[in-house]
Formats: sequence, C-alpha cells, structure tokens
Amino acid sequence: MAEQFTHSLRVRWNECDPQGIVFNGNYLVYFDVVFNEMWHEAIAPWSEIVARGVDTVLAATSLTFRGSARFEDDLEVRARVDHVGTTSVITGITIVRGEEVIVEGTLRHVLVSTSDWRKTELPSWIRDGLERFRA
Amino acid sequence: MAEQFTHSLRVRWNECDPQGIVFNGNYLVYFDVVFNEMWHEAIAPWSEIVARGVDTVLAATSLTFRGSARFEDDLEVRARVDHVGTTSVITGITIVRGEEVIVEGTLRHVLVSTSDWRKTELPSWIRDGLERFRA
Amino acid sequence: MAEQFTHSLRVRWNECDPQGIVFNGNYLVYFDVVFNEMWHEAIAPWSEIVARGVDTVLAATSLTFRGSARFEDDLEVRARVDHVGTTSVITGITIVRGEEVIVEGTLRHVLVSTSDWRKTELPSWIRDGLERFRA
Amino acid sequence: MAEQFTHSLRVRWNECDPQGIVFNGNYLVYFDVVFNEMWHEAIAPWSEIVARGVDTVLAATSLTFRGSARFEDDLEVRARVDHVGTTSVITGITIVRGEEVIVEGTLRHVLVSTSDWRKTELPSWIRDGLERFRA
Repeated sequence: MAEQFTHSLRVRWNECDPQGIVFNGNYLVYFDVVFNEMWHEAIAPWSEIVARGVDTVLAATSLTFRGSARFEDDLEVRARVDHVGTTSVITGITIVRGEEVIVEGTLRHVLVSTSDWRKTELPSWIRDGLERFRA
Repeated sequence: MAEQFTHSLRVRWNECDPQGIVFNGNYLVYFDVVFNEMWHEAIAPWSEIVARGVDTVLAATSLTFRGSARFEDDLEVRARVDHVGTTSVITGITIVRGEEVIVEGTLRHVLVSTSDWRKTELPSWIRDGLERFRA
Repeated sequence: MAEQFTHSLRVRWNECDPQGIVFNGNYLVYFDVVFNEMWHEAIAPWSEIVARGVDTVLAATSLTFRGSARFEDDLEVRARVDHVGTTSVITGITIVRGEEVIVEGTLRHVLVSTSDWRKTELPSWIRDGLERFRA
Repeated sequence: MAEQFTHSLRVRWNECDPQGIVFNGNYLVYFDVVFNEMWHEAIAPWSEIVARGVDTVLAATSLTFRGSARFEDDLEVRARVDHVGTTSVITGITIVRGEEVIVEGTLRHVLVSTSDWRKTELPSWIRDGLERFRA
C-alpha cells in the first residue's frame, strides 16, 4: 500500500487578498511546495537531483476550489503520484483544513535535461523513489 | 462579431524563478489581472461592481504551459468570455509573446452576493456588459 | 532576561529569482511572518487581537542584506522587541542560516483602532504580552 | 538639470492584503520594477547589461509608509539617482497617487561581476547613462 505524502503549512498574511481569503495563485505556490518536498523526501534534495542533470518543468495544472483558507489557518497539503509516464509525472494534490477539503488539483510535470532543457526519460532512481507515494 | 480583450504587461524580475522563467503560479496572477481589467472595461471599475452588492470567486481553473516567458518579455494577455451561465462565467485566456503562445487556460468564476458570500444570479448589467467580449 | 523569539522556515522555490537567491521583497514577507508569529505567541491569535478592536500597520522598515539565501535553505528568523512607545512598537529582526547572518532589519509598527484605522495607544494586554520578548 | 524617472502602474488584486491595502513587501516589488525600468531606459535592456558581465545586488533598503494604496489605484513611481559611488548606487524612490505621497524609500545597490559575483567598479557606460537621472 502506497503512502500519501503530507506537508503542513500555516497561511501567511500576505497570501490573503482583500476578501480575506488566500489568493488563488498562491495555491499553486502551496502545490509547488508540496511537490518539491515530496521529491526531496522520496528521491533527494533538489540540489542533488539537478546535479545529476535533470529538472522538472510544469506542463499543465488544474485546480478546483471547494472552500476558502484564511490567515493563520493550519492547512495540510496531501500529495500522491497519480501517474508515471516515460517523460512525465502526474501528481494529485488535496489541501485540507481539518476535515474540510479546500482545494483539489493536479500537476503534470515533464522531466527535462539541464544540458538542453528538452524533455528526457525518467531515470530509474527517480522512478524507484516515487514508487513509495504511488496512488 | 465579438471582440477579444487584450492587456499588455512586461514580466517583472521577481516573477521569475531560478530557472530564469516566470514561476507557474504567477500566470494565475496574470490571468487575474486580465480578468479584472476586462470586467473593468466591460462593466465598471471593481469598486462600483462591489458597491452594487456582488463579487466573484474563482471556482476552478486549468492552465497548459506551451512555452516560457522571461524577465523583460512583453506579453499580450488575451481574454474572451467562453460561457455565461446562471451564476457563473467561464473565461478563456491566452498569453502570447509575439506570435508564440506561452500559456493557455480557463477560469470559471462564480458570482457571489457580498451580503452572505453565497452564489447569486448574474444581473443583467453584468450579462449585458460581458456580451461585447463573448466568444 | 528577555527571550528572543525564533521561527524556522525553509526557502520556497518561487521566492527565489533568476540569480538563484531569495528576491529582496520576500524578506519583508519573512519579517511579517515572524512578527505575526511573535505576537501570536506573546499575546493571542490575530483573530482575537483584531476582535478586541486593534490592529497594526507598518510605518517604516529598513533592511541590510549581508548574504544570500537559496532554495531549500533552512533559515532561522529571530525577532526581539526593541522599543515600545505610546502608539508604536519597533521590532528588530535577524535572519540566519546556521552561523551566517543573511539579513538584518527593523520594523516600526503603529497600533490602529479597527473602528477608524487611526492610531491608538497600546493597551496593557499588548504591552504586558510583549514584555517577554523585550530586548 | 536632471530628469526624474517615472513609471506608472495599477495596483493588482493579489498585491493587496485583508486590510484592503497593498502588502508592505509588494512596495519593494514596485521599487524593483522602477529601478529596472530606469536602468533599461538610461543604459540598456538588462539582457545587454548582464551580457557585458555585470549585474546588481541590493545591499540595503529603507521604506517609510505615508499612506495606503488600494486595488485599482493608479500609482506613479518616481526614481532618481541620489549617489553614485565607486561600486554602488543609491536610488531614491517616491510612490504617489495623484498629489498624495504613499511611500518613500531608498535602495542601495552594489555592482557585481557575473563571473564571480563579487563587487566591481561601475564602468563608465553605466556611470554616464545614469547621469541623466542624477538628483
């Protein structure tokens, strides 16, 4: 059984807009934070990943907003690896406050070579590392 | 024939990440800027819209990244009203640099009442204003 | 002897610019985070502070950059109450990575009433709470 | 007589916080935008400046907040070169909305070499270009 990766964060003041709620674009910041933390945990710190000659670029994303988070809310951001393709990875994200789902979404990243920034096949050390968080 | 709404902006330094490209979440900032400017142009300044007792909340969004924008790039952000429902509006966005499409996406906003923040029907003065930019 | 308030945070990818270092304006985000956390700890959650009819507004700030923080750096943000005036508070901030000082600065906040947003005297429950972190 | 450099911008929704005003750290974004635009105008696009082997790093800044800007405010950001040293430049910034001063501040940048990121003397083509906006 795969684990789910979880990351906790507290909503910052500057992340909220005049409606008093987190500005929508800042949820992509949270998505990015949890994606980076999951790979850090599953594979290696990013400086090591990049030193091995690969990096990721976001190709597509979708978000559905089911509630609103506010200043000082303690959120849990959950991530799971939904799909591992030849050159891409789809990550599913759910942000909750207690039992309440605030945002759901997906990220589709493409792996690129740091030598020419073109897409490249996922090496086995990334594939194997991500296995732990496969949905 | 409907017009397309266009808004020009120059990429700011702080919007770019260590890969040298605009961070993905900042495209939602650009989407928000052009959505706000389109409603300002089509309907009224936002202070007037809100003074009439309604506001918008983002319900869902999707973005596809086809290229990368960089510091000092002059971008054109194009918006069109793809669908007007009873309580919601779907806006299609395309960001281009010259002839090159950088990002495409959609925003689905729900109209809410500022008295209780629950969804409410689009009044005719919003419906009529948006007609000009209907796809 | 007064305590120093400390808050840990890890640098996020989107906070870094194309030079690979944290964009200068984001240090004011870190300053704001630690100021808010210190008052939360010393006095009450912000929703309670505001419910009692007061809030803070930043009047002036200065920052000196002594080093550069990078993606995934674990920083410690230290805060101390440097001065408590009739209507204002000066907070001193130091951001370190291990032994290395990255940024030093000060924040001068004014207390305002939430009824008219004009400055107002610091009540004793704020004064007393802050005593713990007085320099 | 030296000119003053001016740049216009409209406050974006995401730049405002739950008090309804521009979050303080975002004024450093505005400062950075006008600094970059002034050098672009006075010297060259940044890609050319960097191609010649130099870049700038912020060493210190101070800001005084005299008013509050809000969503959809049209601001004018004014910049002048206050001091040109051997390796550093001090820029004075004033942000106004109509006749009202919102924020005043200074930026002290150090010139660095892109080969080793150490400070380096200002070349004459930067010195001469900035002359136009010397206070």
